[in-house]
Amino acid sequence: MASSPTNPTVDEGDYRRFRQELDTFLRVPSISTDPERAGDVRRCAGWVAGQVESLDGFRVEIIDTAGHPVVVGERMVSDELPTLLTYGHYDVQPSEPDDLWTTPPFEPTERDGRLYARGSADDKGQVHMHLKALELALRSSGDVRANLKVIIEGEEEVGSKHLGAFLVDNAERLACDGIVISDTQMFSSDLPCITTGLRGIAYFEINVTGPRSDLHSGSYGGAVVNPAGALAQIVAGLKDDQGRATVSGYYDDVRAITAAERESLDRLPMNDAILREQVGAPELGGEAGFSALERLWYRPALDVNGLLSGWTGDGSKTVLPSRAMAKVSMRLVPDQDADAVAAAFEQRVGELAPPGVTVDVRCFHAAAPWVADTRHPVFDAAGQALESGFGAPPAFIREGGSIPIVQTFEDTFESPALLMGFALPGCNAHAPDEWLDLGVYCSGIAALADFYRLAGPACMQATAGSPG
Amino acid sequence: MASSPTNPTVDEGDYRRFRQELDTFLRVPSISTDPERAGDVRRCAGWVAGQVESLDGFRVEIIDTAGHPVVVGERMVSDELPTLLTYGHYDVQPSEPDDLWTTPPFEPTERDGRLYARGSADDKGQVHMHLKALELALRSSGDVRANLKVIIEGEEEVGSKHLGAFLVDNAERLACDGIVISDTQMFSSDLPCITTGLRGIAYFEINVTGPRSDLHSGSYGGAVVNPAGALAQIVAGLKDDQGRATVSGYYDDVRAITAAERESLDRLPMNDAILREQVGAPELGGEAGFSALERLWYRPALDVNGLLSGWTGDGSKTVLPSRAMAKVSMRLVPDQDADAVAAAFEQRVGELAPPGVTVDVRCFHAAAPWVADTRHPVFDAAGQALESGFGAPPAFIREGGSIPIVQTFEDTFESPALLMGFALPGCNAHAPDEWLDLGVYCSGIAALADFYRLAGPACMQATAGSPG
Repeated sequence: MASSPTNPTVDEGDYRRFRQELDTFLRVPSISTDPERAGDVRRCAGWVAGQVESLDGFRVEIIDTAGHPVVVGERMVSDELPTLLTYGHYDVQPSEPDDLWTTPPFEPTERDGRLYARGSADDKGQVHMHLKALELALRSSGDVRANLKVIIEGEEEVGSKHLGAFLVDNAERLACDGIVISDTQMFSSDLPCITTGLRGIAYFEINVTGPRSDLHSGSYGGAVVNPAGALAQIVAGLKDDQGRATVSGYYDDVRAITAAERESLDRLPMNDAILREQVGAPELGGEAGFSALERLWYRPALDVNGLLSGWTGDGSKTVLPSRAMAKVSMRLVPDQDADAVAAAFEQRVGELAPPGVTVDVRCFHAAAPWVADTRHPVFDAAGQALESGFGAPPAFIREGGSIPIVQTFEDTFESPALLMGFALPGCNAHAPDEWLDLGVYCSGIAALADFYRLAGPACMQATAGSPG
Repeated sequence: MASSPTNPTVDEGDYRRFRQELDTFLRVPSISTDPERAGDVRRCAGWVAGQVESLDGFRVEIIDTAGHPVVVGERMVSDELPTLLTYGHYDVQPSEPDDLWTTPPFEPTERDGRLYARGSADDKGQVHMHLKALELALRSSGDVRANLKVIIEGEEEVGSKHLGAFLVDNAERLACDGIVISDTQMFSSDLPCITTGLRGIAYFEINVTGPRSDLHSGSYGGAVVNPAGALAQIVAGLKDDQGRATVSGYYDDVRAITAAERESLDRLPMNDAILREQVGAPELGGEAGFSALERLWYRPALDVNGLLSGWTGDGSKTVLPSRAMAKVSMRLVPDQDADAVAAAFEQRVGELAPPGVTVDVRCFHAAAPWVADTRHPVFDAAGQALESGFGAPPAFIREGGSIPIVQTFEDTFESPALLMGFALPGCNAHAPDEWLDLGVYCSGIAALADFYRLAGPACMQATAGSPG
C-alpha cells in the first residue's frame, strides 16, 4: 500500500501556532513527584483538556484520581468502526540540579533546531505531536475511519500509580482495538523507530539508621557503626565483580538472547563506541559478556539513583551521621517477575546490612517488562506512516526504560500497544538540558496524522482476520 | 597543697550577667565553613575582643589572617613571671539539619539545667568560662602571679588552617610557659577530666564522575558505569570485614596499648554498654578485638562524613547520576604520620575505583595525633584547681577527636599544653541539640579561676627544676 497522496504536512502557519502552544505546555512545572507542585500539575491537566476539546468532534473530561487527574477525550463516530486509544503523560520529572541547565528548565528555548525544556522530549513534546496530528488528520475528517480516544495522565513519572485502577474502572468507556503511545526514542532524526520491548522496574529507597542523632566523628568514630559506611557496604554488595546483581534468583527467568536478536542488533546504526561518545563517560561498563545494546535491551540492570547522608555542603564537617539514604532501582526483562525480584531484593539488603544499624527498605513501585506482538496489522500501518513522514521505514528496537502502564493497557483492553517514539538519543530526558528536535517534531506530526488515517482500516483487517 | 581558701565562686549576680553574655555570644552564627557567614564570624571576633578588653589590665587586638580573624589579648605584668597562654575558638560547626533541633540552634534556650545552642559546648561555652574565670581571678589581681595571654581563633572547625602560620609569625608576642585549652569533654558533671591524648585527622572529599550529564537510568542503566555505585564500591572497599582500614601501611606505626593503659581504662566509669546507651545505636561496632574506649582513644578510625548523589528528594527519580560525592575522614593515633597516611589513602581510593569513572580525591586537612607529657607541674596545679571546683580529683583521659593545633602550640612555644574539658558526654557537639551543663559551667569557672592563681607558681617550679 502506497503512502496516501493526501498525507498532511505542517505548513508555516500551523507551525507558528503549534510552537506557541507547545511553549505554553512546557512552561507549566507539572512535576508529579513534588507535593508542592500539585497545583501546577492540575493546571497542566486543564491546559491539555483545552487542547483536546478544540479537536473537531472531541468531548473531554478531567477526571480526578486519588493522585493527579487524568484527561480523557473521546470522538465516537460509529460502533462499527474500530477504536484507537492514544496514551501519553503531561507530568514531568523534577528539574534539579537547576544550575546545570543552560537555560531555565521551564522557559522553553530554541537553539540550533532543538527546543530545550523539561518535558520537551518526555513526554509533553510527543503528546503535543499527537494532538496536532489529530488536528491535521481531522481537517478532512472523512479520512479518519476510526473512533478516537485519548487518555493523558499526570503520574507517569511516579509510576502511574493510580492509572491501573483507573483503566479497569473505566474499561468500558475506554474500550479500544489498539493503543498508541509515543514516549520512547528513535535512533536518529532520519531513522524512525517502533519500540517492541520495554524493561520493567522495581524502585526502592533504603534508609540506614545508626546512632540516635548525628555524632562528632572524632568523639565516636571507630566505636559506633557509621550508617553511611554501612549503606556503602550494602549498595556495593548488591553487585559482584562481574557486574552481576547478587539478588537471589535474579537471572533465573531472564530469557537468553536469540541469534536472530543478536543479528538484528548488529544491523542497527549503534555500537558501544557510539554509545560511549553519546554519554561522554570514560568507558562503558556493566554485566560481563554482553554488548552495550544487549545490556540495555535484553539484560536486567541495577542502578543507584540517589545517595544522601551527613554533611554535603562545602568544606568539612566532622560528623558521624545518624542516617544514610540510597535510592536504588532495578530494570527488569522478560520473564523476570517484578514482585518476586522486589522481595528478593529486600531480603538481600537485609543480608548485607552489618550489625549496629537498622535498615528500612521501601518499594516505591514495581512493574513487569513488556514485549510487543508485532504481527498485528497496526504495526504495518505505523511502518507506512513513519516512512511517509521520515522517508525511511522504521527500525524495530527495544528500550531500556520502563513505561509500567503498557502491559496494563494491553491486559485491560486485550489490544496491542504500539510504541512510536520521537525523542532522539542524548535528549537528556530526566537530566538537565532536555531537548526535542524540532525537525522531528514536524515530521512526526505528519507521520502521526498519516497513521491516524491508516490505522482504522488496519484494525478492521485485524478484526476480520481474527478467529472470532 | 590545699585548695586556696580564697577560691572564688560564681555568685548570683555574676551568674545572671555571665549568662546574658553567654547567650549573646551563642546567638552569633559564626559558622566558619560557610562563606556566607564570614560577616557573622567577624562580628563574633569583635564580641570576643570586647570581652577580653573588659578584663582588668588586658589589652586586645583583632588580627586579620587570610581566613577569619584571630583575637589576641595580653596582660603583661613582669618579665620575671611565667606566662600562661589560653587558647579557644569562637567559630562553630554548621547547624544543619536545623529541623532536628528542638529549639533553633542560634537561640540559646535553657531546659533542665542545660543550655541548648550551637557552640554551647564546642567551644563558645568553654571559652566564656575562661573569660569569666579570668575576671574572677583578677578581682584580687595580686593572686595571679603570671602574665596572661589569650588567643581565640575563628577557624578551628575548618582545621585551624591559618593559625599554624599565625603562631609562628607571632611567636615572640605569644611566647609562654604553658598553654591552657578547654575544648574537650569530662566524664560526668562530678568527675572533671584532663585530656592527655588526641587523635589526629585527615579529611577528604572524593568526587566520582561518570557520564557527561545525568542520564535516564532506564535508557542507559546497565551499560554505563553508575558513579554512585562506583562510589559505594570505593567507600565499602576502604574497610575489610574485620572493620580494619585497607589503606596500605595504616597500622604499621600504631602504638600497641600497654597493660597500664588497659588498667586505667578499666577504672573509668565507662564501658561499651554505657556508650551504646549514650549514642542510642542498636549495638556498637568497629575494629575487631578492641573495646569501645580502646577504639576511640588508642586505635585509628575511618568514617564517612557525607554522601551525595542523584535524586535525594521525596519519591523516585529514575536518574543515572553523572556525579557522586563522599566526605571521608580518618582519625589517627600515635605514631601514625598524617601526611603518609593521607597519601596512602589517596592511592587506595585510586586502586578501588572501577573503570568507567574518573575519581578526584581532595584532602581538606591533615593533622598529627598528640599525647601530653603529664609530668609537668602545671598538671598538678590543674588537678588541684579541678578538685577545688568539682570536689573530686580529675581523671586522666584521652579523646577521640582532634584539635589539630595542640601539637603546633607545643612545638612553637616549647611549652606543655594542658587540656581541661567541660563538655559532657552526649552534649551533641557537631549535631543538633548541642548543650552545655550550667552546673558544670559554674563549677568550671570557679575551678579555672583557681587554676589561674595556682598555675603561675607551678610554672615557676618547672622553670626552677629544668636543667637550664
